[in-house]
Amino acid sequence: MTSKDKVSALRRLMRKEGLTAYLVPTTDPHQSEYVPTCWRRREFLSGFTGSAGDLVITQKEAGLWTDSRYWLQAGRELDKKVFKLFKAGEPGVLSINAYLEQKVRKGQRVGVDPRVISKSQAEDLEFVLKGRDASLKLVSSNLVDAVWADEQPPLPLDPVQRLSDRYAGQKVEAKLAGIRKELAGQDAEAHLICALDAIAWTFNIRGRDVEFNPVAIAYALVTKRGATLFIDESKLSAATAKWLKGVAKIEPYEAVGKALRKLAKARKRVLIDPKEINRWALDRLRGAKLVFGDSPVQLAKSSKNKAELRGMRHAHVQDGVALVRFLSWLESVPQRGRLSEVDCIDRLEALRAEGELYQGASFAYISSWKANGAVIHYDPKKAKPAKLKGRGLYLFDTGGQYLTGTTDVTRTIVFGEPTAHEKACFTRVLQGVIALSVAHFPEGTFGATMEALARRPLWGDHLNYKHGTGHGVGHYLNVHEGPVGFAPRSPGKLKAGNVLTIEPGHYEAGKFGIRIENMVAAAPISKRKPKAGEPAWLEFETLTLCPIDLRLIDTRLMAADEVTWLNGYHEWVRDSLAPHLDSDDRAYLELATRPL
Amino acid sequence: MTSKDKVSALRRLMRKEGLTAYLVPTTDPHQSEYVPTCWRRREFLSGFTGSAGDLVITQKEAGLWTDSRYWLQAGRELDKKVFKLFKAGEPGVLSINAYLEQKVRKGQRVGVDPRVISKSQAEDLEFVLKGRDASLKLVSSNLVDAVWADEQPPLPLDPVQRLSDRYAGQKVEAKLAGIRKELAGQDAEAHLICALDAIAWTFNIRGRDVEFNPVAIAYALVTKRGATLFIDESKLSAATAKWLKGVAKIEPYEAVGKALRKLAKARKRVLIDPKEINRWALDRLRGAKLVFGDSPVQLAKSSKNKAELRGMRHAHVQDGVALVRFLSWLESVPQRGRLSEVDCIDRLEALRAEGELYQGASFAYISSWKANGAVIHYDPKKAKPAKLKGRGLYLFDTGGQYLTGTTDVTRTIVFGEPTAHEKACFTRVLQGVIALSVAHFPEGTFGATMEALARRPLWGDHLNYKHGTGHGVGHYLNVHEGPVGFAPRSPGKLKAGNVLTIEPGHYEAGKFGIRIENMVAAAPISKRKPKAGEPAWLEFETLTLCPIDLRLIDTRLMAADEVTWLNGYHEWVRDSLAPHLDSDDRAYLELATRPL
Repeated sequence: MTSKDKVSALRRLMRKEGLTAYLVPTTDPHQSEYVPTCWRRREFLSGFTGSAGDLVITQKEAGLWTDSRYWLQAGRELDKKVFKLFKAGEPGVLSINAYLEQKVRKGQRVGVDPRVISKSQAEDLEFVLKGRDASLKLVSSNLVDAVWADEQPPLPLDPVQRLSDRYAGQKVEAKLAGIRKELAGQDAEAHLICALDAIAWTFNIRGRDVEFNPVAIAYALVTKRGATLFIDESKLSAATAKWLKGVAKIEPYEAVGKALRKLAKARKRVLIDPKEINRWALDRLRGAKLVFGDSPVQLAKSSKNKAELRGMRHAHVQDGVALVRFLSWLESVPQRGRLSEVDCIDRLEALRAEGELYQGASFAYISSWKANGAVIHYDPKKAKPAKLKGRGLYLFDTGGQYLTGTTDVTRTIVFGEPTAHEKACFTRVLQGVIALSVAHFPEGTFGATMEALARRPLWGDHLNYKHGTGHGVGHYLNVHEGPVGFAPRSPGKLKAGNVLTIEPGHYEAGKFGIRIENMVAAAPISKRKPKAGEPAWLEFETLTLCPIDLRLIDTRLMAADEVTWLNGYHEWVRDSLAPHLDSDDRAYLELATRPL
Repeated sequence: MTSKDKVSALRRLMRKEGLTAYLVPTTDPHQSEYVPTCWRRREFLSGFTGSAGDLVITQKEAGLWTDSRYWLQAGRELDKKVFKLFKAGEPGVLSINAYLEQKVRKGQRVGVDPRVISKSQAEDLEFVLKGRDASLKLVSSNLVDAVWADEQPPLPLDPVQRLSDRYAGQKVEAKLAGIRKELAGQDAEAHLICALDAIAWTFNIRGRDVEFNPVAIAYALVTKRGATLFIDESKLSAATAKWLKGVAKIEPYEAVGKALRKLAKARKRVLIDPKEINRWALDRLRGAKLVFGDSPVQLAKSSKNKAELRGMRHAHVQDGVALVRFLSWLESVPQRGRLSEVDCIDRLEALRAEGELYQGASFAYISSWKANGAVIHYDPKKAKPAKLKGRGLYLFDTGGQYLTGTTDVTRTIVFGEPTAHEKACFTRVLQGVIALSVAHFPEGTFGATMEALARRPLWGDHLNYKHGTGHGVGHYLNVHEGPVGFAPRSPGKLKAGNVLTIEPGHYEAGKFGIRIENMVAAAPISKRKPKAGEPAWLEFETLTLCPIDLRLIDTRLMAADEVTWLNGYHEWVRDSLAPHLDSDDRAYLELATRPL
């Protein structure tokens, strides 16, 4: 079936349901960023494979809304005769809601599967449509699934793994007690957890249902005295099932609707996070007393405990060894010009796989030669991969999942002589990394505020990047984790234990891309407790261990303290990784981390 | 009547209405920050005179919620036997909504005057109360007014002034055309303007109904073809009335309710800003098709036109002359130790009054000696003013209204020898001002993001200030103006023409306060139009003309480019002001602006 056929089939179903428009959001019932294959309806319909993008289908038009990271990729992947690309966030480009507001007429209906739209999205859209005397119709059988039919993969049944307390650092019982304390504080009797990573964290389990994100499809309910995990039990080994039943009741995934209706009937006070819950689950809770608030799990999860931080450091040593072996190989490989972008990341993936406790990649690797580096979320496996021929910049953004933690690292290196302009841009990006890495700041500062520190060195040369400066990272969990992050709209306030990326960049379409990305952990500067009413002062501990290409630095642009930082960083990288390398790779490392 | 008597009387009225709690917000029907005397119900009831603070009265408790700026002042002004102070924003302190959620029981009612609560505040509170099976009761006759009775001042009848097109820079017709263009873009037929400064800007009028804010009490309605100003016509001179009737219909202030009901009945599409509209007006619009969006007036108003910017520069020269004459006098006055904080600002006010086109103060002057400087919004007229005796830091934060613009400036100066610690802190604050002042940044950057630049120099020494870094300023209008600002929650994106303050500080309770505040205007760096899809690059033009105390600078902490900035700033201050000063003051200026 072509995109055209699929959209035609969908339009027939829409007419049957009396729908003027149908919304196909990128997400799943759990508001996941990465979605299990069986729920990738937007990808099935449009062919667009990026991690973010929503579709609106009307009888006359089909549109994909995606942000600047994916404009080039969407341009390549979409059939332009069928789909129109809406560059979300570009001045003058309508939002989906504004678009629908313009398109609908009195009495018309816009359809959506209530499982894949959040409470607030549904409300916003309902409001807009009401202003047009139109309405939102919640169609519980997904229309794209009906088009997909027999070809749609079933719900995954991959095994669920128990994460040892040694790595998790906190027993499930203690985590549940923490949630119950929050419940008591908000005078609620139950909390529904919908986000898959929050469920994995709470129950110290990891799954394989989603590519890159080690989570399992489930819902969870924590009450004053009990806890229920709604999950397909056939995913659990006998040992895991036995252990889990010691801390929670296990019920089938589909049983959650019934459990919610029971809470509603008993008029219980249920704490839910409006950003997490889908409209379908919310409707099941009608009658309950809803307490809306930030998920206590998300907040607890974002502040890593000592064992998690220790694990993160372990994971980064494994990762650093793989990265240096990769870089050392790239420098010395004969006929590098024959290597493709895909060859490179296959090699890096193979090297990571030799690391201790490695579980797999943490996201789709980006490996981009020259102009491809300007495609911010370039995936060479979804393009015609370029060969690393001649002179130019090579950018790779990769990461691993380890039992001990999650990594996410970007480096940009040069083959041949860099131009003065490339060096100047690279140096500004590096200065951005340094400026944010060395900051001292009071606990409670918004990450949204702090990102200016990384942008300023670029702004001075009138350079800027159209993406956030960084995001939270899970502990052997999702590589993108809220609520803290370094983006203008990140809602979270920074606290000790937060693990984030710092990743400024500079991109020139058709020419090159530069990005340098380190992971950091926020830590108190002093062990003394701050005075009453005063916040603790925090600083960042850098976690990422990988040389930064010295050939791309224009030292004349660097301040003395920036040079000191870089030399100190490289010394630490050298000391941490050298013991784990053979003599050739160690010689490479020595050279790559020599003092400026 | 004492606070106690007033609260008792209010409680009797609450019982009559069947109210468990009654909410007395600080604001008025126009969501004003500064409120006309006749509507200062919170001040009448509690005696607390700060610019922000809401009351909740229950039968058992009376609480005032105010932010950190006012904790000390509220502590002094409140009768602690009657009122409990809730330090809003302090960890562990309940918000008003959370407090009410805890206090109310099933079936109970919380009352509020619908004219003084915004749409979103009312909805949030209704949601919280519903979770408790309680409800919000909109009581249209204000209960505090009933207690106030004959003592309550009437609505003000001060004359309204026409602002010449020369100062406004744009005719009313053009402004209305701009609003209508926005209406068309949002497919709306009418826009209700509730904010008094937005009305003053739209109609090029200024009033005297509110202290410091040159606005008049009114509503305004702009439709596709017409415009109506709801204002008491007795405030208009014959000439002003005649001119205004050429651009708009004039109707009585009280007629707005009827006009809104008419729009509702005709099912018109009305654009309203949910942040501006009060619940009473919203209820009058029931039946209309409401288009919620940011006020197009607020956005247009925040980006000053050429005439407004020219005016701002003129106002700052007037202001600078008064400031230098004040500083020069302070340095040389015999027996300065006998001067009180109030004497100082009375002198400064008198000097400002000699300036061209001066209209009055733009806010309640802060004048604080030593420890009083740590009280962030200290008002010596509401305290026992200190005398400037001996050694110490003197902080004054003042500003003027001129026909040509509005000013807001803070300086901190030393009498006697500063300590090394005072100098270090002052230097860090100055470095914060400089860092933000010299930034280059792309149009569209959030002010919330940029404020980190001003904080960083302080953060490095583990200093921080518990207030925003700056706010938008009106053109001969409100000294606090949205939507742009340099605070963590400022919603606005920066664009050319924005006028803002930059005002980092450092405060040590019981010891001293330091703040340096300049006003700046955002301006394109290059006259060339940016490439399609690229933002314009902006920089700040500093507007404030006033020396920064060189005796308080620790030059060893200053980078070379910071010294260059300061010397350049002082040279500009000297060149701009010297021609307007007599020889004594000029000699002072020469000394105060000598190169470092």
